[in-house]
Amino acid sequence: MSLENIACNKSFGGWHKRYRHRSATLGCDMVFAIYLPPQAESGRKLPVLYWLSGLTCTDENFMQKAGAQRLAAELGLIIVAPDTSPRGAEVPGDPDGAWDFGHGAGFYLNATEAPWSRHYRMHDYVVQELPALIEANFPASDARGISGHSMGGHGALVAALRTPGRYRSVSAFAPICHPVQCPWGEKAFSRYLGEDRSKWAEWDASLLIANAPERLPLLIDQGDRDSFLDTQLMPESLRGAAAPAGHALELRMQAGYDHSYYFIASFIEDHLRHHAQALKAD
Amino acid sequence: MSLENIACNKSFGGWHKRYRHRSATLGCDMVFAIYLPPQAESGRKLPVLYWLSGLTCTDENFMQKAGAQRLAAELGLIIVAPDTSPRGAEVPGDPDGAWDFGHGAGFYLNATEAPWSRHYRMHDYVVQELPALIEANFPASDARGISGHSMGGHGALVAALRTPGRYRSVSAFAPICHPVQCPWGEKAFSRYLGEDRSKWAEWDASLLIANAPERLPLLIDQGDRDSFLDTQLMPESLRGAAAPAGHALELRMQAGYDHSYYFIASFIEDHLRHHAQALKAD
Repeated sequence: MSLENIACNKSFGGWHKRYRHRSATLGCDMVFAIYLPPQAESGRKLPVLYWLSGLTCTDENFMQKAGAQRLAAELGLIIVAPDTSPRGAEVPGDPDGAWDFGHGAGFYLNATEAPWSRHYRMHDYVVQELPALIEANFPASDARGISGHSMGGHGALVAALRTPGRYRSVSAFAPICHPVQCPWGEKAFSRYLGEDRSKWAEWDASLLIANAPERLPLLIDQGDRDSFLDTQLMPESLRGAAAPAGHALELRMQAGYDHSYYFIASFIEDHLRHHAQALKAD
Repeated sequence: MSLENIACNKSFGGWHKRYRHRSATLGCDMVFAIYLPPQAESGRKLPVLYWLSGLTCTDENFMQKAGAQRLAAELGLIIVAPDTSPRGAEVPGDPDGAWDFGHGAGFYLNATEAPWSRHYRMHDYVVQELPALIEANFPASDARGISGHSMGGHGALVAALRTPGRYRSVSAFAPICHPVQCPWGEKAFSRYLGEDRSKWAEWDASLLIANAPERLPLLIDQGDRDSFLDTQLMPESLRGAAAPAGHALELRMQAGYDHSYYFIASFIEDHLRHHAQALKAD
């Protein structure tokens, strides 16, 4: 597996780098970003936080806007940010050119319907291929946390709930909590997974959590002025499902905050400390 | 003077807002961004740091990428980020469509040559019109600091050196220190100011500093891996002129850092504390 380094910036004493590689899972070239804190130069393996971005984003949004490197440098965390979908001329996009399906909108699932099933396998990429690549090529341990925003918050929750033992901590900002019941989810799932809604449940955090065997530290921040709160995100569905299943979900409604990166930046410190506490406890 | 609010995001307990207004100085509509920290709700007037961005930027780059709001909220500083040039269909741009002249490249000076002299008066806008607008419409005191990056670092240095008494503190990231001797400056000054190089000196920090009557706290950070360092930025010219003139210039060469916002974010805390110390000393 060859990695092509395409960007390199010193940041808070460590390094922000971007790499291009051929993904076997996705059948296309992919770009990811990695932040290596100063502690990475010690040779010791460091825990990794995987960050999944939302609709329309790439690997760049979080690295440029969240203000996370300062904390990662303090806490000795590696951060890895993949792209949000397969890309390239060979990968079909939305037939209508919309922004909420196709390129930039992979929903972190494994599609089963043609023509999407050939490339749209972001769950396997994020959960399997990318960590294997990171752990083979960087001073990264197998202590993994996962977080994300909006569609990426959904992706983080689903990744953790579906793969017990793979992550030690999970968090999300304004996640899509119940995609089978919201317009973004209905559009994406009906195409990626087909019209049989019974198959959608395995990609919905509010439905998965009832039977999830693992109890991870789970922190969610949600702005109460987020214009997508009621129609697309529905954190109360997740809260309602988490409590009877015995999950300690900390859902914080943040007064006045919207869906933007200004919201994420305002609370990223709490999330990185949440992950560091779990990832550095040995 | 009417201000049209075009964006509003809660950020670190305060508010990031963007406004559009008609600029009499520039003869066009302009957009600026302002960060109002939580302390702005007390009714007390707060000091203001003006941030000038570099070539191709708008009011948005610094607010999204520098990570400054966290510190501004802690320190009780307002931050104001104007656009980098006059804009709009009525404002002539670079005849060749280049990115280093015209729109996005106002160089924070007052042009004297047609057709630029009608609109390209960013110095007067930044130093006079914008602060008057801010101090009349927001809880902003007349304690002003100024900073910027690259072309905006040049703008900040020149603004402070030309207008004694107007600012209490100045700093810059990777500023163009000696524009009369670098390709960016030569291209811009020859068009905005004409071919008579004797008129260029009043817009060049390394030449202005010899006769500046005021001694401000002056902090400059410069990455030593900045690809523009030798050809365009020339901080040693400023250092060489500052010392005999008795200016306490703190020029810090930062090993491994480039010209990007990752560099700015890594050191913005030091700059905001530098400004807060001067601005809050009463």
